[in-house]
Amino acid sequence: MTSTPVAVVASDAEDQPERTPELEALYRGFEREMLIPLWTEIGDLMPLAPRSRAVPHLWRWTNLLPMAERAGELVPVGRGGERRAIALANPGLAGRPFATPTLWAAIQYLNPGEDAPVHRHTQNAFRFVVEGEGVWTVVDGDPVAMRRGDFLPQAGWHWHGHHNVTDRPMAWIDGLDIPFQHYADSTFFEFGPDEVETREAPDRSRSERLWGHPGLRPLTHLQPTPATPLLAYRWEHTDRALSEQLALEAEGYRATVEPGHAAVRYVNPTTGDDVMPTLRSEFHRLAPGTATEPVREVGSSVFQVFDGAGEVTVAEHTWKAERGDLFVVPSWQPLRVATDGGLDLFRFSDTPIFEKLHQHRVKGDHQ
Amino acid sequence: MTSTPVAVVASDAEDQPERTPELEALYRGFEREMLIPLWTEIGDLMPLAPRSRAVPHLWRWTNLLPMAERAGELVPVGRGGERRAIALANPGLAGRPFATPTLWAAIQYLNPGEDAPVHRHTQNAFRFVVEGEGVWTVVDGDPVAMRRGDFLPQAGWHWHGHHNVTDRPMAWIDGLDIPFQHYADSTFFEFGPDEVETREAPDRSRSERLWGHPGLRPLTHLQPTPATPLLAYRWEHTDRALSEQLALEAEGYRATVEPGHAAVRYVNPTTGDDVMPTLRSEFHRLAPGTATEPVREVGSSVFQVFDGAGEVTVAEHTWKAERGDLFVVPSWQPLRVATDGGLDLFRFSDTPIFEKLHQHRVKGDHQ
Amino acid sequence: MTSTPVAVVASDAEDQPERTPELEALYRGFEREMLIPLWTEIGDLMPLAPRSRAVPHLWRWTNLLPMAERAGELVPVGRGGERRAIALANPGLAGRPFATPTLWAAIQYLNPGEDAPVHRHTQNAFRFVVEGEGVWTVVDGDPVAMRRGDFLPQAGWHWHGHHNVTDRPMAWIDGLDIPFQHYADSTFFEFGPDEVETREAPDRSRSERLWGHPGLRPLTHLQPTPATPLLAYRWEHTDRALSEQLALEAEGYRATVEPGHAAVRYVNPTTGDDVMPTLRSEFHRLAPGTATEPVREVGSSVFQVFDGAGEVTVAEHTWKAERGDLFVVPSWQPLRVATDGGLDLFRFSDTPIFEKLHQHRVKGDHQ
Amino acid sequence: MTSTPVAVVASDAEDQPERTPELEALYRGFEREMLIPLWTEIGDLMPLAPRSRAVPHLWRWTNLLPMAERAGELVPVGRGGERRAIALANPGLAGRPFATPTLWAAIQYLNPGEDAPVHRHTQNAFRFVVEGEGVWTVVDGDPVAMRRGDFLPQAGWHWHGHHNVTDRPMAWIDGLDIPFQHYADSTFFEFGPDEVETREAPDRSRSERLWGHPGLRPLTHLQPTPATPLLAYRWEHTDRALSEQLALEAEGYRATVEPGHAAVRYVNPTTGDDVMPTLRSEFHRLAPGTATEPVREVGSSVFQVFDGAGEVTVAEHTWKAERGDLFVVPSWQPLRVATDGGLDLFRFSDTPIFEKLHQHRVKGDHQ
Repeated sequence: MTSTPVAVVASDAEDQPERTPELEALYRGFEREMLIPLWTEIGDLMPLAPRSRAVPHLWRWTNLLPMAERAGELVPVGRGGERRAIALANPGLAGRPFATPTLWAAIQYLNPGEDAPVHRHTQNAFRFVVEGEGVWTVVDGDPVAMRRGDFLPQAGWHWHGHHNVTDRPMAWIDGLDIPFQHYADSTFFEFGPDEVETREAPDRSRSERLWGHPGLRPLTHLQPTPATPLLAYRWEHTDRALSEQLALEAEGYRATVEPGHAAVRYVNPTTGDDVMPTLRSEFHRLAPGTATEPVREVGSSVFQVFDGAGEVTVAEHTWKAERGDLFVVPSWQPLRVATDGGLDLFRFSDTPIFEKLHQHRVKGDHQ
Repeated sequence: MTSTPVAVVASDAEDQPERTPELEALYRGFEREMLIPLWTEIGDLMPLAPRSRAVPHLWRWTNLLPMAERAGELVPVGRGGERRAIALANPGLAGRPFATPTLWAAIQYLNPGEDAPVHRHTQNAFRFVVEGEGVWTVVDGDPVAMRRGDFLPQAGWHWHGHHNVTDRPMAWIDGLDIPFQHYADSTFFEFGPDEVETREAPDRSRSERLWGHPGLRPLTHLQPTPATPLLAYRWEHTDRALSEQLALEAEGYRATVEPGHAAVRYVNPTTGDDVMPTLRSEFHRLAPGTATEPVREVGSSVFQVFDGAGEVTVAEHTWKAERGDLFVVPSWQPLRVATDGGLDLFRFSDTPIFEKLHQHRVKGDHQ
Repeated sequence: MTSTPVAVVASDAEDQPERTPELEALYRGFEREMLIPLWTEIGDLMPLAPRSRAVPHLWRWTNLLPMAERAGELVPVGRGGERRAIALANPGLAGRPFATPTLWAAIQYLNPGEDAPVHRHTQNAFRFVVEGEGVWTVVDGDPVAMRRGDFLPQAGWHWHGHHNVTDRPMAWIDGLDIPFQHYADSTFFEFGPDEVETREAPDRSRSERLWGHPGLRPLTHLQPTPATPLLAYRWEHTDRALSEQLALEAEGYRATVEPGHAAVRYVNPTTGDDVMPTLRSEFHRLAPGTATEPVREVGSSVFQVFDGAGEVTVAEHTWKAERGDLFVVPSWQPLRVATDGGLDLFRFSDTPIFEKLHQHRVKGDHQ
Repeated sequence: MTSTPVAVVASDAEDQPERTPELEALYRGFEREMLIPLWTEIGDLMPLAPRSRAVPHLWRWTNLLPMAERAGELVPVGRGGERRAIALANPGLAGRPFATPTLWAAIQYLNPGEDAPVHRHTQNAFRFVVEGEGVWTVVDGDPVAMRRGDFLPQAGWHWHGHHNVTDRPMAWIDGLDIPFQHYADSTFFEFGPDEVETREAPDRSRSERLWGHPGLRPLTHLQPTPATPLLAYRWEHTDRALSEQLALEAEGYRATVEPGHAAVRYVNPTTGDDVMPTLRSEFHRLAPGTATEPVREVGSSVFQVFDGAGEVTVAEHTWKAERGDLFVVPSWQPLRVATDGGLDLFRFSDTPIFEKLHQHRVKGDHQ
């Protein structure tokens, strides 16, 4: 812990008091006493609407994946570094490995036969697989297969490691609330074994066998838990749910967020609420020829294109986005997505933080 | 919004991969693509326990008040600067006017006859009065007297201004969640009239007349609200509640947190929960000769000595604290307070954030 | 447990099947097998709106009190009978001591020096005092004074007894959910000492000293409890809250349920919700010259006139009601109250049951 | 509404006051004033533990089904009688068509081509199918197939009718909270069309297509609802969930309530809580050679044997139960089930009422 000197810098706003010698002396006194007045800072601190330092940005999968592969050659995975994960660093966030002020997003890469060692931390985490398979993430001893389209939550303070049982490398996306917990000073971390505790590689985890039945709850687990006990949300279910929404829309029923726009939220079956206390995760499907209405929302999001292609506009930025590409939407920046051929989008965000603290706002045409 | 270059700086930890030219080339590639690896950053990002950048610090009232008085002579209050408020700037927080990463604490000063203009913002706020009287804060048109010992919450997005109807200046403490909302990009702000809408200066606000009766709820207001509708928590009630706890303890009943340590939390009468979604406020009274057991807690606090004197120890810092002095306790730093002659302490903290997000931990002897 | 024969009685409704010998034989078969068809019973079981067997009824205090006094002469109080309580028996409820299908209301009477022995039961209970004083109800060892206008809740499964420390008898009203718990088969009961465990008769209970401070919660008791920990809601607070509502109305602010009609609900300070899980309690004040708009509500209520006089209309019944008179409003019967000189009304009801089970409905002009 | 005379009948308990002429005169006075003393009634009203009037009883499917078939020949279904439903009448409940004080259970029967007309009511309802298929229940216009093993909830105040589109009759079990709502005076009823509004007979309802995906929630429906929006809980899922629990147990993991005893609760996916506000529904599977530990619980249950056979003991009653047999367990009566060859049991109960009102208790070896 080091001490930073305080500098009271005169704002050039018209409403500032005249810079007399007396005022300068007062400001120097403030500095000595570790004080800063509101009136020189209010413009930055209390804007009329959120002005995030984070900027909209898109990372190309075609750039990310080769770098991860190269890291796979050069950087061992093991105790200390813990994970071969490479994080998106938002250009507005002072060179920190933060996708947004609250969210971490990284590509993780595991070679054949490698183990990512066991640890646990208060950060909430998940994995999402845009392509490939062969790694099992072992959560509290329960091995969970990872395959294309699967969403694999893993809430804070659960032991976990990964092992690649195949002869091919695998890459996937990690999402966490590292920046939020780092900022908020709430992070704890503990080391477990260097090697994952089981070599089992079952098709379905025990968690799915207990919790993966729609509307059915085991009588052994009747208390609500803050995070989901279901450790895998399989692609076949997500895909079917989205297809059904579009089919129901075509039959004339209300099932989509807006025309051509199907969407599901991954939820905790013990509460019906978000999968983890700080992270929201959703999957959106746009039918061919769909353009969404612009939406702006308090809180930030990271999206990954799962399939198809489309045009993404965040505030004044527009990109053509394709499979695997990731982009961020900072707080209160309007987002609009359009596609000719159809688009499947995975999304995660920090919205539960704002909803729980009664700071959430959303503004759009369909909400 | 400006773009910051990313620099992948080799960590000097033993577990880092060897700095070969190939690795350097890879790191340069990361920088081009706005990527940062976890393995060089994990020590900072994921420590074993919270390591706050904020440091324990104490500000002396005998220094603060004269500076506020001087500001009262030199700095007008009005539209633009909005408030003659001077904030505590934690020495660890890079010269920002933040008492802790999440909390704002400032001394505010209003001269006779002055108005602090009307505005509203999403930040939750309160005032606490360590001495003086004469200002009415007008919240949504309801004038609320401010007097020594009163706690005056004012939740986000309510219109408010202040006016001093007396011929004497008045100073008090403002607490807000400005740093948290600034960081999280959730802040909205709106200007109201330059002058406070009423000159009324009643002894009791309408809010107190509706809500200030213990255990009684008006039938016109049966829905729970996220923040308290009671705009003043008067000293006479706080004082009596604390005295009763110590008296009950003396009679042999469990009523205190630990021997000699009485404490109340200010709560929202519509829920029994914290007064505001992000801020906890409490009042603690230590009987003469009391020393508290050390407690460490996730989240940060600001304390103000309301009366008496004592010795405060936060981690390796120890201060003699007296009436009006303010000090901060960063996340997970142990706090211990001892007093010979008795001590009355006002406290506010960001704990509701962590409790709602299931990140709260506390470690101490009486909890 | 005895077995009752089943009789399938032909309904005379037009929509019944023809009473052929074959049908009669089938009905006899039903009876043998303990079966009853829906089609003969649906009219009674599933009416278009609630048709309570309970009827509106008023009991005169001038009749009740002399009978309680006479019981005080003839009937000892002690273990076995437990309480000298005389219950209102709704004329529609088959000679049972039930004010409504769910609510018990009784006048209880205690002579000088008498003890009502200690017991506990799952039934939720309260006392309300229309006149007199001198009895302390001792709840879990905490002696609580009972005086005119006080509302004294005492939630299920807490030990309690009463003792009269004065030289004058005292009468009051007990309200419980005995009929509901009797019907629902959820009642447990346990005997305590024959004599109340303390002769103390303090002005304020320990419960009030801990909990009776508006908006302040002891740090020793931070978990919400299903029933209120505050054992006395004193008349001075209720009276002032109601007066303030009428004063605020006169000043032009929204504070009353409807013009001239002030009302407070007694609530649990740990939740802001009803004082007990099954019982709602309120106090209503009608200013002189006020007539309420008719309201009908699912669930039943018992009212007692605390002061003043008025005309009460429940469905087709109209009574002049005066101090101490009690009347019941069965489910979905419209209630209207009018007063020339002003009227203070205590009310309790079973509404929390219906709200928690999502069966509550209300229909009126001001709701 | 008729008025019942009140009779104060002297209790023969030892603790009663002596029956003097003065006391008799007082009792006659009570009767005139519609009053009943507690001391003569307390033994019945406030027993030491629940003493339900309902008795344990078992109804044989081999008796029920032929009677329902005969009713199918003799009794038309249509407007007025509304349903060809034949209710279990508990021998202890005074000849009323109530399985327990709170629960209705009936066999319903629909001939080929018949419609059960559309209506809605505040009573919560469900259907459970022990054998057969061919009927669609249409809930708010959504046709829901009914097949062996399916559980089909249909919460209060939703329009619904049934139609049999096949050339074979079908029977099933209805469960409702009719007795509770009848007692509590909360029932509303409304007639819809005489014929079901659609002849569609899809394999899967729209509700399943929207809600039947584990852990996935449509973004169009994010608010929690008091009752489940999922209108069918299919046998294939229930069966698999139970099989998995037994398999996990065999692998050494905690997944069963007690050895050999798998169980799931049907839950509302918007909350993780019971399917309806007043009704709990569960499915239990006992592996061959399993005997459950006795459990007693506040609240009453109805069970139906879905498959297999076993020995059921409720208090002092013991029956051999086989496929289709129904039995009731009154409040606080101990239940024990044993099976040689394995047993599948459907259960529903009124437990949510007691949990929400904080009156639930359970006593057993595994709870």
